[in-house]
Amino acid sequence: MGRTSTARERLLEAAGDLLQTRGYGSLGVAEICTRAEVKKGSFYHFFESKQALTAEAATAYWHQQRACWTAELAGPDPALIRLRRVLAALTAAQHAHKETNGTVDGCLLGNLALELSTQEPDVRACLANAFDEQTALITATLLTAAAEGDIPPHHATSATARAVIAQLEGLVLFAKLRNDPSVLDTLWSGTLLLLGADPDRP
Amino acid sequence: MGRTSTARERLLEAAGDLLQTRGYGSLGVAEICTRAEVKKGSFYHFFESKQALTAEAATAYWHQQRACWTAELAGPDPALIRLRRVLAALTAAQHAHKETNGTVDGCLLGNLALELSTQEPDVRACLANAFDEQTALITATLLTAAAEGDIPPHHATSATARAVIAQLEGLVLFAKLRNDPSVLDTLWSGTLLLLGADPDRP
Repeated sequence: MGRTSTARERLLEAAGDLLQTRGYGSLGVAEICTRAEVKKGSFYHFFESKQALTAEAATAYWHQQRACWTAELAGPDPALIRLRRVLAALTAAQHAHKETNGTVDGCLLGNLALELSTQEPDVRACLANAFDEQTALITATLLTAAAEGDIPPHHATSATARAVIAQLEGLVLFAKLRNDPSVLDTLWSGTLLLLGADPDRP
Repeated sequence: MGRTSTARERLLEAAGDLLQTRGYGSLGVAEICTRAEVKKGSFYHFFESKQALTAEAATAYWHQQRACWTAELAGPDPALIRLRRVLAALTAAQHAHKETNGTVDGCLLGNLALELSTQEPDVRACLANAFDEQTALITATLLTAAAEGDIPPHHATSATARAVIAQLEGLVLFAKLRNDPSVLDTLWSGTLLLLGADPDRP
């Protein structure tokens, strides 16, 4: 059963894996505990409920992704090149998961957003916060791209950033449904169109 | 309990409602039967499993939507005007549900696509088929729009049609997460950009 100090992390990790492959509704605390090798009696020592654990697991998922976003968005390259790197990294992750596990898992944030509907307000608040942070990161990048003359200034807005993320989530939905990450091949050309950028740029 | 001849339809209707608000994973056959006022023993007379009922409910949902799509896409107006009518009708449906029930329910096809992952292949085949039909309807409209000179011919493709649907599904995801249908206000301007159309057209 390992040390108590790691039981909480094991529960979070098990929940992240199971939520991604199985969804929220059909997942029980007992199953999470089994995967985490934590006694069910200990679960409520660490988390108030399945909802509380899911909110933390979704936040942990985003924080891990955010580290990738900020790494790809850093550096001296033009803003559009850096944005392209983020989208390429997200696409590569879907390809890698397909190659390793045989399935396109999609985005845990999007999966939970559509499954939970108006239920589980604490989880939904975490998801909304994650998408707000994504929007802010892309908006800042678009402002730089506009200053660099690569997109029209009127497209350097949070509305355009949300459109870019919506396009990403929609294509990830299709990639997951078809279990085919190549659906994402059009992501960058679609993004350039949404930005009003030159569609022939590399 | 009503006549046997309507029990099947009641099960389909109850499943459609419950899947939309509750999702698939946490929904049980007993609950569907209670909502439909059908004895649980009768369920398996009509449907082999929850998966079989869900596949039929998703198809029924799409056929109902498809009637709306084809009605809005019909008529003598320019193709882009007709496409705009479809998207406006879908947006109006989200607003109407929010006003009537207090919630943005989103799209049952998208909800199920993200929740089911690689499970339940029969349901996923129905969803893929529905999205294929949507793609075909939009592609045909784009071909007309190109012939009418309203979009560049190289955007009159199924890839562009999928991008339009991806943008729609992504924005519906955000509208559902925030329970705010006004998220869809940018749908048409984003669509015009994806089509390479004049963004200032009405």
